[in-house]
Amino acid sequence: MPKPQLLETFPNPYAGRDYEIHMDCPEFTSLCPLGGIEGDASDLAALEGGAPDFATMRITYFPGESCVELKSLKLYLWSFRNDGIFYERAVNRILDDLVERVNPKWMRVVGDFNLRGGIKSVITASSGTRPASQDL
Amino acid sequence: MPKPQLLETFPNPYAGRDYEIHMDCPEFTSLCPLGGIEGDASDLAALEGGAPDFATMRITYFPGESCVELKSLKLYLWSFRNDGIFYERAVNRILDDLVERVNPKWMRVVGDFNLRGGIKSVITASSGTRPASQDL
Amino acid sequence: MPKPQLLETFPNPYAGRDYEIHMDCPEFTSLCPLGGIEGDASDLAALEGGAPDFATMRITYFPGESCVELKSLKLYLWSFRNDGIFYERAVNRILDDLVERVNPKWMRVVGDFNLRGGIKSVITASSGTRPASQDL
Amino acid sequence: MPKPQLLETFPNPYAGRDYEIHMDCPEFTSLCPLGGIEGDASDLAALEGGAPDFATMRITYFPGESCVELKSLKLYLWSFRNDGIFYERAVNRILDDLVERVNPKWMRVVGDFNLRGGIKSVITASSGTRPASQDL
Amino acid sequence: MPKPQLLETFPNPYAGRDYEIHMDCPEFTSLCPLGGIEGDASDLAALEGGAPDFATMRITYFPGESCVELKSLKLYLWSFRNDGIFYERAVNRILDDLVERVNPKWMRVVGDFNLRGGIKSVITASSGTRPASQDL
Amino acid sequence: MPKPQLLETFPNPYAGRDYEIHMDCPEFTSLCPLGGIEGDASDLAALEGGAPDFATMRITYFPGESCVELKSLKLYLWSFRNDGIFYERAVNRILDDLVERVNPKWMRVVGDFNLRGGIKSVITASSGTRPASQDL
Amino acid sequence: MPKPQLLETFPNPYAGRDYEIHMDCPEFTSLCPLGGIEGDASDLAALEGGAPDFATMRITYFPGESCVELKSLKLYLWSFRNDGIFYERAVNRILDDLVERVNPKWMRVVGDFNLRGGIKSVITASSGTRPASQDL
Amino acid sequence: MPKPQLLETFPNPYAGRDYEIHMDCPEFTSLCPLGGIEGDASDLAALEGGAPDFATMRITYFPGESCVELKSLKLYLWSFRNDGIFYERAVNRILDDLVERVNPKWMRVVGDFNLRGGIKSVITASSGTRPASQDL
Amino acid sequence: MPKPQLLETFPNPYAGRDYEIHMDCPEFTSLCPLGGIEGDASDLAALEGGAPDFATMRITYFPGESCVELKSLKLYLWSFRNDGIFYERAVNRILDDLVERVNPKWMRVVGDFNLRGGIKSVITASSGTRPASQDL
Amino acid sequence: MPKPQLLETFPNPYAGRDYEIHMDCPEFTSLCPLGGIEGDASDLAALEGGAPDFATMRITYFPGESCVELKSLKLYLWSFRNDGIFYERAVNRILDDLVERVNPKWMRVVGDFNLRGGIKSVITASSGTRPASQDL
Repeated sequence: MPKPQLLETFPNPYAGRDYEIHMDCPEFTSLCPLGGIEGDASDLAALEGGAPDFATMRITYFPGESCVELKSLKLYLWSFRNDGIFYERAVNRILDDLVERVNPKWMRVVGDFNLRGGIKSVITASSGTRPASQDL
Repeated sequence: MPKPQLLETFPNPYAGRDYEIHMDCPEFTSLCPLGGIEGDASDLAALEGGAPDFATMRITYFPGESCVELKSLKLYLWSFRNDGIFYERAVNRILDDLVERVNPKWMRVVGDFNLRGGIKSVITASSGTRPASQDL
Repeated sequence: MPKPQLLETFPNPYAGRDYEIHMDCPEFTSLCPLGGIEGDASDLAALEGGAPDFATMRITYFPGESCVELKSLKLYLWSFRNDGIFYERAVNRILDDLVERVNPKWMRVVGDFNLRGGIKSVITASSGTRPASQDL
Repeated sequence: MPKPQLLETFPNPYAGRDYEIHMDCPEFTSLCPLGGIEGDASDLAALEGGAPDFATMRITYFPGESCVELKSLKLYLWSFRNDGIFYERAVNRILDDLVERVNPKWMRVVGDFNLRGGIKSVITASSGTRPASQDL
Repeated sequence: MPKPQLLETFPNPYAGRDYEIHMDCPEFTSLCPLGGIEGDASDLAALEGGAPDFATMRITYFPGESCVELKSLKLYLWSFRNDGIFYERAVNRILDDLVERVNPKWMRVVGDFNLRGGIKSVITASSGTRPASQDL
Repeated sequence: MPKPQLLETFPNPYAGRDYEIHMDCPEFTSLCPLGGIEGDASDLAALEGGAPDFATMRITYFPGESCVELKSLKLYLWSFRNDGIFYERAVNRILDDLVERVNPKWMRVVGDFNLRGGIKSVITASSGTRPASQDL
Repeated sequence: MPKPQLLETFPNPYAGRDYEIHMDCPEFTSLCPLGGIEGDASDLAALEGGAPDFATMRITYFPGESCVELKSLKLYLWSFRNDGIFYERAVNRILDDLVERVNPKWMRVVGDFNLRGGIKSVITASSGTRPASQDL
Repeated sequence: MPKPQLLETFPNPYAGRDYEIHMDCPEFTSLCPLGGIEGDASDLAALEGGAPDFATMRITYFPGESCVELKSLKLYLWSFRNDGIFYERAVNRILDDLVERVNPKWMRVVGDFNLRGGIKSVITASSGTRPASQDL
Repeated sequence: MPKPQLLETFPNPYAGRDYEIHMDCPEFTSLCPLGGIEGDASDLAALEGGAPDFATMRITYFPGESCVELKSLKLYLWSFRNDGIFYERAVNRILDDLVERVNPKWMRVVGDFNLRGGIKSVITASSGTRPASQDL
Repeated sequence: MPKPQLLETFPNPYAGRDYEIHMDCPEFTSLCPLGGIEGDASDLAALEGGAPDFATMRITYFPGESCVELKSLKLYLWSFRNDGIFYERAVNRILDDLVERVNPKWMRVVGDFNLRGGIKSVITASSGTRPASQDL
């Protein structure tokens, strides 16, 4: 199960300035939900049904009062490893969990998934309005 | 013959948010229409006239109430395999079939065809107005 | 001599929709005009003066009532093979010939020429106003 | 069904010299055999079981008395389009058919197949002994 | 735990010929052993100690009487997902398991692991003597 | 400790024109702060805690009355070599130091850091309003 | 010394249309000014002080009544070969010389210089307002 | 018609040493022979039958007493422009013409032809024995 | 000062087999010796003389009884950070230190250094004889 | 005029071991000899006849008693800047000068020249016998 409680933050050292933080996380993996049932699928990894999914998660945000701590983000993303979850839900869930803990001015999450059945999927969701982008 | 009835959908799990789904389908193949007559050309594959065409289909959309199910999209695209159809018609037909079944807020289909006669063709069609794109 | 009469069209199968057709033609070749005099230079190919030029022609348009037929475009571009013509004139001439025959809503021609004398040239010309581009 | 009778040859114009001919054929497609039964699977293309396979076939040979005619090779490779055949058999079959018709001094066929189930396969088979390779 | 019993084979359809089969498996993942203790580490995935490892496994062999079945290879590689195992052991273990089940004339396994601590590792092991390689 | 006093400038030779200067500095290195304590960490380089960080610093600005002298910029960036500093602070600190010394019309600093714990970070900060960008 | 008198023009063959000409000149070389003194440095090439600089000059413009002749541009750029000149001055000087001779509707010069002291510099300057860019 | 009489040589300035000269000529073009009849096809360029072929010619040799003059090689290769000739003949013909005029210790010609009918061809021929290759 | 005492090993888990371990270490940095005097240069980092050097160290070996522990290798390479050392000495020193501690059957160290003064250097040294390489 | 007297050496710090040093020098430039007459051409740089040549010089050697000093190599290569010299002579001259001063066990010089008249040239010359190469 995804564990948002793993996410930690630290105070934004330059809170008076609008600036952007981008992170590429190329080692995201979860499981395909078996028969459309999402949830813990750890016993199923060796079975054909609950096949592993792989993605690069690309997270971009303008920090408000706090920044996400890198090591805790890594641990949070690892907590999807044995979870059965659809692409669309994974990306939106990560966005919701991060927004709730980090409270950024704006945040975008892109899930760039590996080829499955000859098709590559990329899901993009965002929250808030990107500030001052014309000058970055 | 293209079989739009193969397309299946599932309810958008985050229908309250404008977000984008992109799919690259690099294994699209159909046949060139013989003598300009489109239709079933399966007997013609080994003849010079009805030569195979190959393309990557790139589909992007903002889901409304429903999302297209990936496996059914794969089967739908396979149903063009022995069909004689022009580039322009294939791209617009896929857009029409998907819009009718999935009813997205906005959708774009790009057909990126392999070199033929020393010329590479890319056809792009869209339906609806892209929402909130400035913040993605 | 360029032969615009080789260009053929077919009726746009989706004339009710604004969509884009792009073609990359990587095998365009003509001759450098001898002594600045443009025209037929077929006898001059083996002489140093009328040196061959090579380019990729990139053509993009929104079709109106008709589309350019691919095979006829190929033949038309071949008709420059033994013609002495400047870069700027070639690109604008192709744009003019295509606009006159195909009558698109908007068309752009980019001539991406090979290195000559240590300098690479790219010429871009367009005709009309690109419709609905914000949604493609 | 593969149709080796489509293969045509022409006399090697430089039969007195050991030289190499290499061809990349990036548009090979066949069908995955349904339930392990190989053979004609044309009705099955739209069903999940007989899924399409895609490969680049790379053919290299030293011609003896004859060379394979390019257009006939293209038609021969197209004749696999609706055939259910395993990777290993396809590559070895193409090698056998070509060796029988063209009778080269040496020939190698490499089947470079697209990712399936997260795994990419490359099959390499050859016939005869490569002559004079140290000087090419 | 790695499950070699998942590996299945099928009879080599061209057993009379020395030919090569190569497979790239870019989605291998296991866990780093906690405190140097290898074994089942499924509860540890969300902890810092048992960090996930990622690799591309590249397998090449000359089949003898049998070939490894692709789907069963995929399931076998998935069975390392929650196993704590060192790089060197994983590569040699996969080689041993495959050689025992498939009994090839020659086999090589290359484990191409992602950057860890700023260092990228590639482990290469083989079994048997590569036949006839000079003609492939 | 970062030494902004190393930064030198020279008079902008074309102060009457709005133009852009961009510099890529691919050899930036500092140390990760030990236990969250920033400052001089030179004795710690060989210890696991104060691990080296590596980044490409990308600096872009429209000069006002003065330009930054290249050699002095190099020396200034070297002065971070044995300093323990967080990513966000390093990028914003470099921006502040440069803006104070060079007083540009607009400046942007992008810190493109190497993979750490499987995550790549890119921090972007700017100061001032970019002039006349529509014509560059 | 740069020799703007080498620059020649020819009448724009399509003066009635706004179109763009782009040239990449990857073989620009000049000398670093010795002790900050710009000017003729031909005797200094073999000395450490007046080190050679290398750049790609990228020139883009919308021609007015005339176009720059390619061969004369090449000769003009060669005339910097033994000149000691700063990056910022070289780019702005080339822009000034070309604008004075060619009188374009709009012109941009980008000097993309090789790595020096571990830092890569790119200088961009323009003159005039880019016309009709939304349709190119 | 190919004009070997255009080829000129100059005395090898280091004839006492075995060294290698390699030339890539990416702008070779000839015509496909009409109806299999090779010869002058200059009137046919605008017709579908005698379609243009494009290739990169890669020539490598160890010079004996003389080297091929670069400008004359360029003119010689241009003389194929309006000639109808098969791939295999073109490569072997160039090898024969060069060997006769330049008399190298060893020479190899590789014709790397553009995709035709979905197939890419590369023809490699050599003459003589490559000397001392183990030390280059 | 380089600290070989940081290097740790673990017993080779497959000591009965000849196999290869390769490691790419892209974040090696040391200092250029000031005035040709090698040794501790930590105070000199901010001075122009003792400029930082950057390299990728590529280490390949066939383990004997033991393997080098990855984390300890990382710490050992970090210990060059404030050391003034020539390229040739750094590569040969790393080889000597590793051979002494790890005692491999064969080992090669390649130092791939960043551009300095417009010149890129790569130093390659090895110890022992590479076993069984023909089958890997 | 090339100035071999600029070349300096330092004692090989590991003279007891056969190891390899490779240097890429991407900024070599000289002049094309005017009318075939080699020599000082500094006045001719701005004229069409003595056109600049550009190359990457790739130098590889096994040092004997001494190594070439990097800064002096850079100065030596700069000394060709205003010299009219043919490709073949430049590469062999650099090899001769270096061999005379550095006296390596084996040395190779590769001159990789920029495209001229649509043709790219690469000249490779070596001196001595490469030692122990099988283990590097």
